[in-house]
Amino acid sequence: MPDIIEPRVLKGFRDYLPEAEIERQALIDKLERVFRSFGFVPIDTPVLEYAEILLGKGGGETDKQVYRFKDQGERDVAMRFDLTVPFARFMAEHVDELYLPFRRYHMAKVWRGENTQRGRYREFMQCDFDIVGTDSAEADADIVLVMLNAIAALGIGPFTLRMNHRGLFNRFLATLGASEKTPAILRAVDKLDKIGKEEVGKLIEAEIGSDAALKVLDYIVAGKDFPSTLARLESLAGGPGTDSSRLREIHEAATESKAIGEGKPGKLVLDPSITRGLDYYTGVVFELYLDDLPEVGAVSGGGRYDELASLYTKRKLPGVGAAIGLDRLLAAAETLGKTEGRASYTDVIVLSVEEGWGPRYQGIAAALRGSGLSAEVFPEKKKMAQQFAYAEKKKIPFAVILGGDESARGVVTLRELSARENRDFGSIEEAAAFIRDRTGR
Amino acid sequence: MPDIIEPRVLKGFRDYLPEAEIERQALIDKLERVFRSFGFVPIDTPVLEYAEILLGKGGGETDKQVYRFKDQGERDVAMRFDLTVPFARFMAEHVDELYLPFRRYHMAKVWRGENTQRGRYREFMQCDFDIVGTDSAEADADIVLVMLNAIAALGIGPFTLRMNHRGLFNRFLATLGASEKTPAILRAVDKLDKIGKEEVGKLIEAEIGSDAALKVLDYIVAGKDFPSTLARLESLAGGPGTDSSRLREIHEAATESKAIGEGKPGKLVLDPSITRGLDYYTGVVFELYLDDLPEVGAVSGGGRYDELASLYTKRKLPGVGAAIGLDRLLAAAETLGKTEGRASYTDVIVLSVEEGWGPRYQGIAAALRGSGLSAEVFPEKKKMAQQFAYAEKKKIPFAVILGGDESARGVVTLRELSARENRDFGSIEEAAAFIRDRTGR
Repeated sequence: MPDIIEPRVLKGFRDYLPEAEIERQALIDKLERVFRSFGFVPIDTPVLEYAEILLGKGGGETDKQVYRFKDQGERDVAMRFDLTVPFARFMAEHVDELYLPFRRYHMAKVWRGENTQRGRYREFMQCDFDIVGTDSAEADADIVLVMLNAIAALGIGPFTLRMNHRGLFNRFLATLGASEKTPAILRAVDKLDKIGKEEVGKLIEAEIGSDAALKVLDYIVAGKDFPSTLARLESLAGGPGTDSSRLREIHEAATESKAIGEGKPGKLVLDPSITRGLDYYTGVVFELYLDDLPEVGAVSGGGRYDELASLYTKRKLPGVGAAIGLDRLLAAAETLGKTEGRASYTDVIVLSVEEGWGPRYQGIAAALRGSGLSAEVFPEKKKMAQQFAYAEKKKIPFAVILGGDESARGVVTLRELSARENRDFGSIEEAAAFIRDRTGR
Repeated sequence: MPDIIEPRVLKGFRDYLPEAEIERQALIDKLERVFRSFGFVPIDTPVLEYAEILLGKGGGETDKQVYRFKDQGERDVAMRFDLTVPFARFMAEHVDELYLPFRRYHMAKVWRGENTQRGRYREFMQCDFDIVGTDSAEADADIVLVMLNAIAALGIGPFTLRMNHRGLFNRFLATLGASEKTPAILRAVDKLDKIGKEEVGKLIEAEIGSDAALKVLDYIVAGKDFPSTLARLESLAGGPGTDSSRLREIHEAATESKAIGEGKPGKLVLDPSITRGLDYYTGVVFELYLDDLPEVGAVSGGGRYDELASLYTKRKLPGVGAAIGLDRLLAAAETLGKTEGRASYTDVIVLSVEEGWGPRYQGIAAALRGSGLSAEVFPEKKKMAQQFAYAEKKKIPFAVILGGDESARGVVTLRELSARENRDFGSIEEAAAFIRDRTGR
């Protein structure tokens, strides 16, 4: 046995060092504030559940990636691989203790034993928000508004929410007599970003012939202006319907609530090529892209579904929801240079100048905290250069210097660390006011 | 195969419904604010690690409780059962990327397959904070101050932090010529709360005889006044030493920083009977109890240790830290009637009065959010009674009522739901000001 065990994490797992964790928590805080401001409530569910609950009838690609094992009681258990399945189980179990419509958010870790060669992590955060128990257009609008407001709150530049409605597309295909080919056509359209219009056209042509394929290709082009695009699609689909009126209402809600428009970073585009897979969504669907980084893909997406929890209850629970890709957003903020860049929350450090003055320094730090600042005491008398180096590593903007000399002069010295500038103050309160002024705290 | 799968969680696991989750997040927020204000930074580590890393040489009682299994790659992995071991591994791995002294907090879930009959949960939150890389008294003081400030911030009544120093007790035992019996005596003293003074006396007597045992029993009595108790223990231990001067300095720091004293809920008591187990701690040790609920046991505890990470590195990493028992504090707040009692964050709900006015209601909700309130739109036109019942379930204090009638009169009606009182306002902004005034937002 070796003297020491090599400290390392599993492949696909990672530690969050302070700067990364502060960044992640800042992102979470911003999103949480938006969710809460829209009436969404938080819930939490266990990380471990019965495998049967998480995997249902199972057999899919996901199953192989799930961390599944027998616990001490020989129960077949698994770690959650998303937040949707646990939410479905949660609603089925608790709907009578709750109320409908129920709007919740959940930000938590999930685990998938993915192939790490594609840069995927096996442990990552998901962020879901849904409104369950109503089929109304207002709920759809709410989800769209939360997406627009949440991404705007992150301050990472302009973005576009691309929205579509499954029903509208279905009606259009019916006018072509192509209803039976809908799944194949949707699958083809879903590849538009990857393989391009021409190849998509070939795939559709193989299904419904070249004339109809051309019409589909014409249909799926997004126009710049929401109302005129909607009018065009509505007419191609055979006239007004609940699908098109719903899309119109969502656009109006975004306009009325000023989530889009003059001075706003977000745009709402009607994009008939958005399909979001085949099975789950039944109404509106949406995806959100950063204009400056389209290549990272959708940073948020979602839609309306008919049945959240049919695996666990006979009660019908229609809903609408979306997920936000925290890892993608963190990476995007990094790439765009829009990170917070903090290494700590400390506004000011009280340096250790004189041996045995610890309690006095703690008193000063407490006074600084009392004026609304974060303050720490450097916990041992070391060389000033070492204490400054520590402060620099934590990106602390200010240091209080109080030794025998300052004490004799009846002052405290405040050092602005980046500028290497010292200023004397007659009291801690005056120094604190200066820091607050400079840091905007 | 049945039609539906019964929705249920594993024994020892639980869902957090909104009220419980809001309570937990409020607790976490309050603690986090204190940690941050003292310069502590957050980190995160993976839930899954190599079993070898988490269990070390292993073989203890803990091992049997650990969720351990083979992953898809046949790696022997385990879910973390505390936050201390991952932190030790983290420091050993990253110390060169970080800085010392390093002060971190970590609040996260851990898993232990405990016997649930004792009311234990198998999934629970832990909250740890430590300062590593220094042996200084100021760091000890910092941990004590954080404990005092953190529990005070929760506003759940008076509490007492009981502190002791291992070295002082060791010196005292040496004066009795009982150094070799230290472990047995500590074990006996540790049982004081459980079996009482008399039984502890018998255990000690069996080790070192009745005269010496009486002296030990005399020694371990806590005095009410910190300085005089310290003076008595110091003298019994053979005079001043680094241990007693350190205890004195911590008490001074708490006094200087006004963490104790006039009007403060926390007291700092020197309690020579506090031992906190045998192996890990080597200096100061502390435990914190709620005065109104001593029976729940320590809600926080910790101490100084010589070596955080000797399993993973030859580098010496002394430190000091403590843990806060979130579940105990949540239960205590509940028992003491000091919970927040919120069911949502919503300040005001915009009711759905007229069909098709959704976008207009969204505009109103957006204006309310713009004035700093949390606002949601009830997403479908249902009977007023149903909408009121929903608001009541979420404990929403205010509702905006705007229908054709109000619109014709050029007003919005604001209903204070608990009082069932309606008031008309000329604008949303005036209504918002009224809500802010009433709710203190």
